[in-house]
Amino acid sequence: DPACTPVFLHVADAVVHLNALPRDAAVAQARQLDRAMLIKVLQSAELRRSVPLVSAIVQDGAADVLEGMDDDRLADRLARLPAHERTAALRLLQPATRASVQRLMDYPEGTAGRIMTTRFVQVPPDWSVAQALSYLRQPGHRHGTVYSIYVADADGRLRFVLSLRELVSADPAQPLAALWSGAAPITTHALADREDVTRLIRLYDFLALPVVDEEQRVIGIVTVDDVIDTLMEEAQEDMNRFGGAEHMGAPYLEVGFFAMLRKRGGWLAILFLGEMLTASAMQHYEMALEKAVVLAMFIPLIMSSGGNSGSQATSLLIRGLALGEVRLRDWWRVLVRELPTSVVLGAGLGAIGFARILLWQHLGLYDYGEHHLLIAFTIWASLVGIVCFGSTIGSMLPFVLQRIGLDPASASAPLVATLVDVLGLVIYFSVAALLLSGTLL
Amino acid sequence: DPACTPVFLHVADAVVHLNALPRDAAVAQARQLDRAMLIKVLQSAELRRSVPLVSAIVQDGAADVLEGMDDDRLADRLARLPAHERTAALRLLQPATRASVQRLMDYPEGTAGRIMTTRFVQVPPDWSVAQALSYLRQPGHRHGTVYSIYVADADGRLRFVLSLRELVSADPAQPLAALWSGAAPITTHALADREDVTRLIRLYDFLALPVVDEEQRVIGIVTVDDVIDTLMEEAQEDMNRFGGAEHMGAPYLEVGFFAMLRKRGGWLAILFLGEMLTASAMQHYEMALEKAVVLAMFIPLIMSSGGNSGSQATSLLIRGLALGEVRLRDWWRVLVRELPTSVVLGAGLGAIGFARILLWQHLGLYDYGEHHLLIAFTIWASLVGIVCFGSTIGSMLPFVLQRIGLDPASASAPLVATLVDVLGLVIYFSVAALLLSGTLL
Ligand SMILES: [Mg+2]
Ligand SMILES: [Mg+2]
Ligand SMILES: [Mg+2]
Ligand SMILES: [Mg+2]
Ligand SMILES: [Mg+2]
Ligand SMILES: [Mg+2]
Ligand SMILES: [Mg+2]
Ligand SMILES: [Mg+2]
Ligand SMILES: [Mg+2]
Ligand SMILES: [Mg+2]
Ligand SMILES: [Mg+2]
Ligand SMILES: [Mg+2]
Ligand SMILES: [Mg+2]
Repeated sequence: DPACTPVFLHVADAVVHLNALPRDAAVAQARQLDRAMLIKVLQSAELRRSVPLVSAIVQDGAADVLEGMDDDRLADRLARLPAHERTAALRLLQPATRASVQRLMDYPEGTAGRIMTTRFVQVPPDWSVAQALSYLRQPGHRHGTVYSIYVADADGRLRFVLSLRELVSADPAQPLAALWSGAAPITTHALADREDVTRLIRLYDFLALPVVDEEQRVIGIVTVDDVIDTLMEEAQEDMNRFGGAEHMGAPYLEVGFFAMLRKRGGWLAILFLGEMLTASAMQHYEMALEKAVVLAMFIPLIMSSGGNSGSQATSLLIRGLALGEVRLRDWWRVLVRELPTSVVLGAGLGAIGFARILLWQHLGLYDYGEHHLLIAFTIWASLVGIVCFGSTIGSMLPFVLQRIGLDPASASAPLVATLVDVLGLVIYFSVAALLLSGTLL
Repeated sequence: DPACTPVFLHVADAVVHLNALPRDAAVAQARQLDRAMLIKVLQSAELRRSVPLVSAIVQDGAADVLEGMDDDRLADRLARLPAHERTAALRLLQPATRASVQRLMDYPEGTAGRIMTTRFVQVPPDWSVAQALSYLRQPGHRHGTVYSIYVADADGRLRFVLSLRELVSADPAQPLAALWSGAAPITTHALADREDVTRLIRLYDFLALPVVDEEQRVIGIVTVDDVIDTLMEEAQEDMNRFGGAEHMGAPYLEVGFFAMLRKRGGWLAILFLGEMLTASAMQHYEMALEKAVVLAMFIPLIMSSGGNSGSQATSLLIRGLALGEVRLRDWWRVLVRELPTSVVLGAGLGAIGFARILLWQHLGLYDYGEHHLLIAFTIWASLVGIVCFGSTIGSMLPFVLQRIGLDPASASAPLVATLVDVLGLVIYFSVAALLLSGTLL
């Protein structure tokens, strides 16, 4: 019953409540919220079903709600509407808002321009602290971000940035220019990758970062709450790609059946085509397999160990590169660490495999024949080789991707496993040929 | 030459400079920084070699530097020192600081208590806005977080929270109580998981969240910059675990050789033991393999497809659960989506495999014998079964882990692959027995 919409004190409570309702009930209840709360709800990054909600607002012709939103969030919401509803929404807006929203929608997804807010406080350097503080008190700034104050020359060029804390602690009669520490302002550009913005804000512990144009004029600011949302989305993207799925860009349960197929099927098919080389490799070793079927039995065990050690190494280095803990030029230092580490890891796994074969033989659980010691040694040596090879491929792949200009996080566990599987088979059968020829082969 | 330490205007610039230097040079240059900058450098979460730096400060007996740091960051830095240096450092501190730092060090890693700062602004509700603002101007608050003001009763119980913006916009003569919206303050506890703190701050777009004790007294606040650091670390942890490595807790290049072996070897060995079941399964199907070696050739291809589709599904659901987009009770909705999706994906991959076999046969690249159509059909049907099975295991594993109280992010691509490999072999040989008995088998 929409008449029973509860009253919310915190916008987050309203958002959580609406998120838990079925779609139509959520829309009906949202329409009953008071204007100020409805605006805050539509602003929230955590709101799940924004498309039907915004559609309903547009159908109601509630221009004041749309005008009440930040231009950046409004642009983001409208960009997700069907084209005809977007046109209808834009027609509801005042010319200035419409121009601003259309400009923001033009910035590509993933850029600073797309997540910046265009409401910020800019003042001239000759104002006094008291003047700036009384300017902040104007009702128009109630929804903007006031924790950073941008001090700009008459031609709009950003001179320096003051924090609200500096302003509050200062002598009210002082001119703003007297508060400047002399540090050049840290800025970014509208087309900068939002991940680089995140890096800057994390490094400087800023609450907001100004986005400037070519003339150093502030055109918007990226605030820390947008950085948090960006970090969550980028982490999800990296995790999905590492798992071998394209980024869905929407909650799992809201991705359509065909979109899901497309985003998963593409990668699966590419990996499958790569993995078909294993069948070709096996055909090549058909004679060996026919002579010694026992070799086939260890193929899954040996190949998976290569893939596992490779995906370990990849996950460690994707994050290392993303966080800047490891740089491109450190590749050889990584290699120098991976080689001895993986020899020891491979020898350890090999020892388990070796013991397993001898144990089964001596307990009579399986008969590997008179050459069981040689077979066990083949498994051991193959594991050393394959774990080494897997770690090398796995650790170097993120560097190679970064070097050729791709995101190192494009490396995925299935891709590493596929690369390692094909060459792992070659290693295994080569070791077997070396150690077993004249006996089993 | 330490005499040539450059002068830095932003602490982040100094941190980046020191991070790029070799260890001893970094320590030498840091010692030349002026006190205020050195304190800020030691506070920075991005500082890489904090242990030797803090050691040097302790050896210098520079108590004022340690006292100048926030208690929470100091506690975090000291917790990483060798025990005897930690004792020496604590002895340098004033009794009040020492008590505070020791209490903070007692909170386990990963809790709100460990990342909270103990410097915050608390005022009584009967103060006027002007009184509160002039209190903020006291030099003692220069390093604290002033963007949220905590209004508490005489017994210390938190009544409500005001933002600096509200304070600045209000009539200076008003009592603080008049500014209260009536909303109960959102708080957390010192032993709360830092990820839950992150979730609250993200949801409410707070700049800080108060940590209260059992009597609702504020004992510290978690600020948004700590939330950003937490998000980065948790994302790294999830990625590493998903890749099958334990979280290193330190930059890749700074983890010791033996620590690296331990944190990677454990999981590799467990996975290896699980994967040994594949050898047992293969032994079980020895007769079939001897009759039809051709079956062995498709084992890597078929098994990897199960692992790949499983790791895709796992990566999608780990993040879905972490972000709250999917809840525990949605498991059947996920299953109902995964089954048709994976049947289509498996049938698609199977079609590629089917075409490959017929193509090779007709082009004369390989002779699969008179039953090549039956073999191709065996591959197709096995792929449908294994991709279905892989997606089911992969999508349900995060739910199972969350249900039994573990972090869903403990699911890793190698773990999924191992689970799928063993049962994938059983599916493959069962399908083969069904379709090929009487002909090849
Ligand atoms: Mg607006
Ligand atoms: Mg990006
Ligand atoms: Mg924004
Ligand atoms: Mg930081
Ligand atoms: Mg914003
Ligand atoms: Mg990314
Ligand atoms: Mg202190
Ligand atoms: Mg945790
Ligand atoms: Mg802290
Ligand atoms: Mg948020
Ligand atoms: Mg802090
Ligand atoms: Mg976690
Ligand atoms: Mg595999």
